[in-house]
Amino acid sequence: MIIDSALYRGGVRIPLACTKEDLRAVRSSTSEPGDFIWVGLHEPDTAELSAVAEAFELHPLAVEDAVNAHQRPKLERYGDGIFLVLKTLWYVDENDAVETGEINLFVGRDFVVSVRHGEGTELHTARLDLEQRTTVLDHGPSAVVYAICDRVVDSYEEVASALEADVDEVEESVFSPSRTQDSRRIYILKRELSEVRRAVNPLREPMKRFATGSVPVISQESAPFFRDVADHVLRVSEAVEALDSLLSTAFDAHLARISVQQNEDMRKISAWVAIAAVGTLVAGIYGMNFEYMPELRWHFGYFGALGVMLVASVVLYRVFKKSGWL
Amino acid sequence: MIIDSALYRGGVRIPLACTKEDLRAVRSSTSEPGDFIWVGLHEPDTAELSAVAEAFELHPLAVEDAVNAHQRPKLERYGDGIFLVLKTLWYVDENDAVETGEINLFVGRDFVVSVRHGEGTELHTARLDLEQRTTVLDHGPSAVVYAICDRVVDSYEEVASALEADVDEVEESVFSPSRTQDSRRIYILKRELSEVRRAVNPLREPMKRFATGSVPVISQESAPFFRDVADHVLRVSEAVEALDSLLSTAFDAHLARISVQQNEDMRKISAWVAIAAVGTLVAGIYGMNFEYMPELRWHFGYFGALGVMLVASVVLYRVFKKSGWL
Amino acid sequence: MIIDSALYRGGVRIPLACTKEDLRAVRSSTSEPGDFIWVGLHEPDTAELSAVAEAFELHPLAVEDAVNAHQRPKLERYGDGIFLVLKTLWYVDENDAVETGEINLFVGRDFVVSVRHGEGTELHTARLDLEQRTTVLDHGPSAVVYAICDRVVDSYEEVASALEADVDEVEESVFSPSRTQDSRRIYILKRELSEVRRAVNPLREPMKRFATGSVPVISQESAPFFRDVADHVLRVSEAVEALDSLLSTAFDAHLARISVQQNEDMRKISAWVAIAAVGTLVAGIYGMNFEYMPELRWHFGYFGALGVMLVASVVLYRVFKKSGWL
Amino acid sequence: MIIDSALYRGGVRIPLACTKEDLRAVRSSTSEPGDFIWVGLHEPDTAELSAVAEAFELHPLAVEDAVNAHQRPKLERYGDGIFLVLKTLWYVDENDAVETGEINLFVGRDFVVSVRHGEGTELHTARLDLEQRTTVLDHGPSAVVYAICDRVVDSYEEVASALEADVDEVEESVFSPSRTQDSRRIYILKRELSEVRRAVNPLREPMKRFATGSVPVISQESAPFFRDVADHVLRVSEAVEALDSLLSTAFDAHLARISVQQNEDMRKISAWVAIAAVGTLVAGIYGMNFEYMPELRWHFGYFGALGVMLVASVVLYRVFKKSGWL
Amino acid sequence: MIIDSALYRGGVRIPLACTKEDLRAVRSSTSEPGDFIWVGLHEPDTAELSAVAEAFELHPLAVEDAVNAHQRPKLERYGDGIFLVLKTLWYVDENDAVETGEINLFVGRDFVVSVRHGEGTELHTARLDLEQRTTVLDHGPSAVVYAICDRVVDSYEEVASALEADVDEVEESVFSPSRTQDSRRIYILKRELSEVRRAVNPLREPMKRFATGSVPVISQESAPFFRDVADHVLRVSEAVEALDSLLSTAFDAHLARISVQQNEDMRKISAWVAIAAVGTLVAGIYGMNFEYMPELRWHFGYFGALGVMLVASVVLYRVFKKSGWL
Repeated sequence: MIIDSALYRGGVRIPLACTKEDLRAVRSSTSEPGDFIWVGLHEPDTAELSAVAEAFELHPLAVEDAVNAHQRPKLERYGDGIFLVLKTLWYVDENDAVETGEINLFVGRDFVVSVRHGEGTELHTARLDLEQRTTVLDHGPSAVVYAICDRVVDSYEEVASALEADVDEVEESVFSPSRTQDSRRIYILKRELSEVRRAVNPLREPMKRFATGSVPVISQESAPFFRDVADHVLRVSEAVEALDSLLSTAFDAHLARISVQQNEDMRKISAWVAIAAVGTLVAGIYGMNFEYMPELRWHFGYFGALGVMLVASVVLYRVFKKSGWL
Repeated sequence: MIIDSALYRGGVRIPLACTKEDLRAVRSSTSEPGDFIWVGLHEPDTAELSAVAEAFELHPLAVEDAVNAHQRPKLERYGDGIFLVLKTLWYVDENDAVETGEINLFVGRDFVVSVRHGEGTELHTARLDLEQRTTVLDHGPSAVVYAICDRVVDSYEEVASALEADVDEVEESVFSPSRTQDSRRIYILKRELSEVRRAVNPLREPMKRFATGSVPVISQESAPFFRDVADHVLRVSEAVEALDSLLSTAFDAHLARISVQQNEDMRKISAWVAIAAVGTLVAGIYGMNFEYMPELRWHFGYFGALGVMLVASVVLYRVFKKSGWL
Repeated sequence: MIIDSALYRGGVRIPLACTKEDLRAVRSSTSEPGDFIWVGLHEPDTAELSAVAEAFELHPLAVEDAVNAHQRPKLERYGDGIFLVLKTLWYVDENDAVETGEINLFVGRDFVVSVRHGEGTELHTARLDLEQRTTVLDHGPSAVVYAICDRVVDSYEEVASALEADVDEVEESVFSPSRTQDSRRIYILKRELSEVRRAVNPLREPMKRFATGSVPVISQESAPFFRDVADHVLRVSEAVEALDSLLSTAFDAHLARISVQQNEDMRKISAWVAIAAVGTLVAGIYGMNFEYMPELRWHFGYFGALGVMLVASVVLYRVFKKSGWL
Repeated sequence: MIIDSALYRGGVRIPLACTKEDLRAVRSSTSEPGDFIWVGLHEPDTAELSAVAEAFELHPLAVEDAVNAHQRPKLERYGDGIFLVLKTLWYVDENDAVETGEINLFVGRDFVVSVRHGEGTELHTARLDLEQRTTVLDHGPSAVVYAICDRVVDSYEEVASALEADVDEVEESVFSPSRTQDSRRIYILKRELSEVRRAVNPLREPMKRFATGSVPVISQESAPFFRDVADHVLRVSEAVEALDSLLSTAFDAHLARISVQQNEDMRKISAWVAIAAVGTLVAGIYGMNFEYMPELRWHFGYFGALGVMLVASVVLYRVFKKSGWL
Repeated sequence: MIIDSALYRGGVRIPLACTKEDLRAVRSSTSEPGDFIWVGLHEPDTAELSAVAEAFELHPLAVEDAVNAHQRPKLERYGDGIFLVLKTLWYVDENDAVETGEINLFVGRDFVVSVRHGEGTELHTARLDLEQRTTVLDHGPSAVVYAICDRVVDSYEEVASALEADVDEVEESVFSPSRTQDSRRIYILKRELSEVRRAVNPLREPMKRFATGSVPVISQESAPFFRDVADHVLRVSEAVEALDSLLSTAFDAHLARISVQQNEDMRKISAWVAIAAVGTLVAGIYGMNFEYMPELRWHFGYFGALGVMLVASVVLYRVFKKSGWL
């Protein structure tokens, strides 16, 4: 579906009626130097994408990539244009999961075609924000690329901090005195981090190249902006590595905790067994059938025996309590 | 065995009768510029391969490599031709194993000789597909290299997703409430991943070089196609790394689960032992032979003792149930 | 808040009255070659920072970074000036935690604007020290950059040695004969080390570049000074890696210790259970109701039985003591 | 000891009488272009080596290295000659160990001096094989270097596959149902792999340099041969890494197995204890001395009690069997 | 303290009376080309070092580094001289520890100033050895640098082989049948290895640079000598890595051993408990008070019961022995 399309001239938006049919008219609307078009598509069908591809002379291989989502993030040059694939990430609170979508950008000297897959990061507000900043819009298509990359990378940071909060919860759970089963949670978090890593890390190189101004359609004057984005990508990437390594340590701590708990359980059990054993032993002794056992004839022998059991139990209980077994 | 051989002229296939004897005739059939020959062999015997080698003046070291399968994937230049070794991979459902085969390509200015070992990825359909795409065929021998690489790398992706499904199963099994023995399964999957890694990773470099058009017989115009292939290789390679690291975490979770289960078993056992011990202690007490034990003479003393045992057991049972030991 | 501002001419400080209003006057006070200004801000509000930015023509993106603390350490060029972000670290004894702050430096040909966030490393004493060293001050703004970097990196070394002391304590605790729960401590230390690593490691590159004199406003003659700083950064970075890896080993040793202790506990318990079991068995035997059991009629049979229990217990006790079970 | 020495002219061997005394005569026997000498030494004493060094003007530092075996594999240039150190490896079946030896090669424009230490890879058959291949011999000294490297690397592959077989055995043992103690075996294999790694990995660089023809005395035409060797070195190196990582996984699986077995043992033990406890409890109950216990007077009370014990045991046995505890 | 100072002219030592006062005279004694001075200091006080620094015009930052030991090993250029920091290592048998010291070298076109801290590697014998080798001395100051580096790196190799012996002991202990507590020993060895790594690894780069002759005061002709040193550094570095990784495996094996031992203990205990339980059950049965229990009236009933206990125990003992539980 074609979501929005406009011509930008001197930092000002000129809306264009745009259906599949009049794409050619749209394409040829850039009459003055500095003009450029931004066509935004959301999960287009093949026909729509073909029409756009034809109007803007997009490379068939890039178009094929844009149809099948599930690409690696990448930056590719085709002739004098570029093709950029970004993964979008968003965090779904209900099931603590990270979902992924995809944005494909075809950028030429005087146009940007953005193709979005999935429900994540939407580009409409990015467009509105950008349209406020006339000086940035003046950079041409690279302003659009910057606005989108910035938005996408901001969402990475949100995801990273949501995961950071999850790791904090796990940490608290691991070191809480109660028995917790954190291994599953840790596993799932590690899987989510791996997902984020696969979205973020391949983006470092393209952003760096934008930041050095060595990519054809990206203007030199927007390089500092991309340097900022590249820096955020790096920060997310480092945060993810740090979280991953923290989770590994947390997992080890969880394992140690299980061992310690088992040890404590075993000692507690053993202490009670010992207390019971002493009683049983005393009972066994006075259950012997010897003819001559003086205590048996004592009037309070029975209560004495019970008393011995009780005293022995209390003494043992105290001993175990003191030595930390109970 | 020579499977198929044909001359391609202007994107059109001209079949060639081809046995070991008339290879020289085949070789000299490329009379017009842009013509090229594709000879396909499947597990050829030494005589056949020697005949082909002689006709196409292949380098003896490369030919030797093509005879003994079990090479590393690699790209080598011999004079103005190249020699490419690809590992083919396929997933055998019966025993969850990844099998490997090999394809050797000798590529010259106007010919491709493909030598296939093992039962995997067959090339016939790749050839048919390619013959439909006249514009691609026009790229000459690099079109054939592309078609084969594309096919092989597609099969890598299939294998990767089969392994991904296996990892999902393992994950489910590890976190299922039942007792599972996943260590063997995880070990085997790790071995398969190692196999895939050894097939895929050495291919990254050659594909990148094809993609930058810096290899002699690979035409500049087919570079974008190889960029696509290189990208898929990278994707598979990253997926394999991610799976491997997930499996390590799953294994750790499996270990933690075993510990937790042992702990639970131990507590359950101990709880029952405690319940039995109380009964035994009561029985022991009333088994003592003191002359003066008032309870012994009570009419319902016996049933009282049984009652005490029962009540103590029920109370203990509840306590253990509540504190999670049972 | 503007903390301090001064003009340095020929290595001598000339104080400048400096509020938000007369920043332009400050800016234009560098009339002689070699003159430079140092304006120091501490957690400025947006208005203050804007005023400074306007007076010194700072790049808006850099200013934005300076407002939001929580940047990665980085060095960026804007036109003919540079923007440097440093993380400050300090160790809080009360809770064994590493706190982080941030210093942003805007450096031009004839000025330095320093913006400090957080309570750590304060710059006032660094300024006083620097003002003593006229020859160093002669290097111009790079002298200020050096003085600050040196101070910050010195604080890194303090933090690193505080952490080293913590690791030593953990090590002692892990190998102490008493039962210790070190996993939490180790986890927290690893998290602190990760924090330090994220502050220190990104600084290696900028310091190296200063040390090679390849950054515009950093003078060649101050390069050896930065070489010194770069070297300290490297040392801290290596110390952190070594500590991290030591902690991992300490954790493993902790795990092994838990296992060994559990084993010892289990054997100790079992030994006592065995001693009790022998007594119970003897008591059981003489509790049997056979009509013909000669010992039962012996006068000292009972005491004999008690003696047997005692002797058996003592013998077992000795055996267990000798074999290390008790 | 001087094992063999010969002059090669036009691909043909001309044997040379060679003792320590007539080395100078040997040296000066290369009268025609393309002539070269190969002197082979096996564990020479210092005098012999000095004589050779003097005759061939070998660099004293290289000679010193050749006397003391136990060098790292390396390639060094001395003037217009090279000095190559190779580790030889062979697998000793008796004790599953990898033994190491060393070959030092001094290569000049028209000579090769090979010095072999240890009993491994012998060079005599390599020499005989080479002498059959006149075209290869025509490459001059590099033919000898190739022949030796090829032989040495072939032996690496043999060692690697012997270790692969060992790893397969370990794997089988780890996953066999019987209790095995594999940790020692795994440890030793890891040590052997580390040995192999230290022999093989430093050789990758020299072989690559030979393969690119960038080493002085190695002729361009023998580069493809070294490419082959370099490829084999890489293959061994990758195989070793894969084995090492498999062993780590196998070790983890071994640990998991031990835990699982302990768990199973514990449950089996507990089940039997429970069965015994029920019998003891029943016996205890009927051992009580209450005056009024109706069952005691029943004629078949005793057998009834025995029956209850038996039935309870059988029922428990079945329950445990069913739930997998026995 | 100034230990020794001498002028070397044409490979011959000319001793110089040298106290703090006549350093300037010493400095100016190099009148002929090729002359150079070597002044050796051991833990100099600030005054001495200042005097030397002044006489030889050493850079203040380098001098500061030489006063405070505890530098990272490094190579720095100051003007046309270099400053080299080496860590010395020695192994103290008493406590199996590696001690560290430091050597600082200031090298100019015609002088070497060596400053040694700590008790390790002394330089006097290195000096005597060097003075024997006139041809090497002819290389000028680089001969001294070589002699010292060679000596220091030799001591690294001694330390490495002492640690290797320690690792062998640990290995033996881990796999010995007796119960050992190796985790502490392994931890300490890992810490020592980390110490060695920090001394050795930063030296690789400087030695490589010396070996390629790309450092100003190091003569081209001494490059092969430094290549030798660089090679030894690499060898030590690789040995340390291999030892570290072996220790990790040994630690894992130690953990596995603890688990196996616990398992064995548990089974042994359980077997004995089972044997005791059977006796107790039999005693319990005949302790029941049924009126009609035929065995109780048998004359040898008691001995029969004892016999049953004994036989059951022996049978169980054999069964457990056979199945490996005892």
